[in-house]
Amino acid sequence: MKIIIVGASGTIGKKVVEALKTDHEIVTAGSKSGDLQVDITSPESIEAFYKQVGSFDALISTTGSGHFGLIKDATPADYKKGIENKLLGQVNLVLIGQHYINAKGSFTLTSGLLATEPFLNFSNVTLINGALNAFVKGAAIELEDGVRVNVVSPGVVIDSPHYFPVFPGAVPVTMDRVTAGYVRSIFGGITGQVIDVY
Amino acid sequence: MKIIIVGASGTIGKKVVEALKTDHEIVTAGSKSGDLQVDITSPESIEAFYKQVGSFDALISTTGSGHFGLIKDATPADYKKGIENKLLGQVNLVLIGQHYINAKGSFTLTSGLLATEPFLNFSNVTLINGALNAFVKGAAIELEDGVRVNVVSPGVVIDSPHYFPVFPGAVPVTMDRVTAGYVRSIFGGITGQVIDVY
Ligand SMILES: NC(=O)c1ccc[n+]([C@@H]2O[C@H](COP(=O)([O-])OP(=O)(O)OC[C@H]3O[C@@H](n4cnc5c(N)ncnc54)[C@H](OP(=O)(O)O)[C@@H]3O)[C@@H](O)[C@H]2O)c1
Ligand SMILES: NC(=O)c1ccc[n+]([C@@H]2O[C@H](COP(=O)([O-])OP(=O)(O)OC[C@H]3O[C@@H](n4cnc5c(N)ncnc54)[C@H](OP(=O)(O)O)[C@@H]3O)[C@@H](O)[C@H]2O)c1
Repeated sequence: MKIIIVGASGTIGKKVVEALKTDHEIVTAGSKSGDLQVDITSPESIEAFYKQVGSFDALISTTGSGHFGLIKDATPADYKKGIENKLLGQVNLVLIGQHYINAKGSFTLTSGLLATEPFLNFSNVTLINGALNAFVKGAAIELEDGVRVNVVSPGVVIDSPHYFPVFPGAVPVTMDRVTAGYVRSIFGGITGQVIDVY
Repeated sequence: MKIIIVGASGTIGKKVVEALKTDHEIVTAGSKSGDLQVDITSPESIEAFYKQVGSFDALISTTGSGHFGLIKDATPADYKKGIENKLLGQVNLVLIGQHYINAKGSFTLTSGLLATEPFLNFSNVTLINGALNAFVKGAAIELEDGVRVNVVSPGVVIDSPHYFPVFPGAVPVTMDRVTAGYVRSIFGGITGQVIDVY
């Protein structure tokens, strides 16, 4: 299977690459790193990226960032910036990618625990993750030719200790449980599902 | 209590006005209709609006629209337009309004059934409604001075028969149940809640 991983050099992405690379052809991507470059915040860049990759069977996105900060200091511009990155960036990988993916292919996006469990400073990411979790439900019933879409929603991962202080009381999840979520999305036949890993 | 209703001339908004006007000072607003005008798609317009209104105790938003159409035809621009309207429009009423609202005031936004129950042609609105439902959870734990935020998520309302054909099998909800949701948000003490009316 030919599998694209956008965000392949990141904390989660590199473990997903490891889990899949023995048995599959992997195309790694990032804005600066990877086999090919793509900037998810630019629809033009995404379109050019898919043209370069050619047909593929699965796309995994382990990328995207939202605004960090208390709502009292947050501006409409802060919120919009986060939405154009982690939310629209990943959604556009599907909107544009649906025209390039092989029949029976799959898209797997990444949201996170915040979708349902709020923490201080993360109202923008909570919005984004909730939007991604809902999006896959709406998109799944419409994608054609057996194409599927799911989202993995991890808790704080054990390889990101720098996040532990801002998620007080969140129990870190092991990397093998997180990568298992992506494996299940690609090979488990499901669509429109939020794969909670926490 | 001084209550602002943005979208007051709409199908849902006018019933909310009726339910509250006897006992409260109502400020009605719309982009063209109402006591005062505000365009929710413009942060500058929202800021000017709040300056004009002065302090207030509750804001209800019964407005906003998303993109209608199958995902196979949807472009990044379509998605962005919907998000800048129903999602960011309502979120910005809170981000900006938090600096004008009285202590112990409340914000009540409107999402809808699609957040959890997808229908064909509505993937963009599903994303938006899911985002709004998540947003209130993240915002509620941070808003200061006892200010609360909730979202009413109605099913198709009985006064919108033009929507019945695009929501096959959705049982229309009566207007008194819908208006009760907004009343509960303002007077029921809750915060961070999705008030499902379906
Ligand atoms: N880490 C956690 O504990 C955790 C928990 C729950 C959810 N998540 C979510 O999981 C996702 C990945 O998190 P992570 O911690 O693994 O991230 P990370 O270590 O910061 O890695 C980010 C990856 O995305 C790429 N990237 C950055 N900007 C990009 C852009 N504009 N276009 C394309 N690629 C871009 C980076 O490569 P370049 O540098 O080459 O651009 C890198 O490969 C995020 O959505 C995050 O919110 C993370
Ligand atoms: N109707 C339903 O069955 C139903 C079900 C579930 C959820 N909802 C949601 O409930 C909300 C209201 O729906 P509705 O059917 O009552 O809507 P509607 O009848 O179309 O009314 C829309 C209202 O919003 C105002 N408005 C439009 N654009 C605006 C803008 N840019 N800035 C400020 N105000 C604006 C309109 O006034 P002006 O013309 O003066 O701008 C009008 O008062 C929407 O978010 C909708 O998705 C509706």
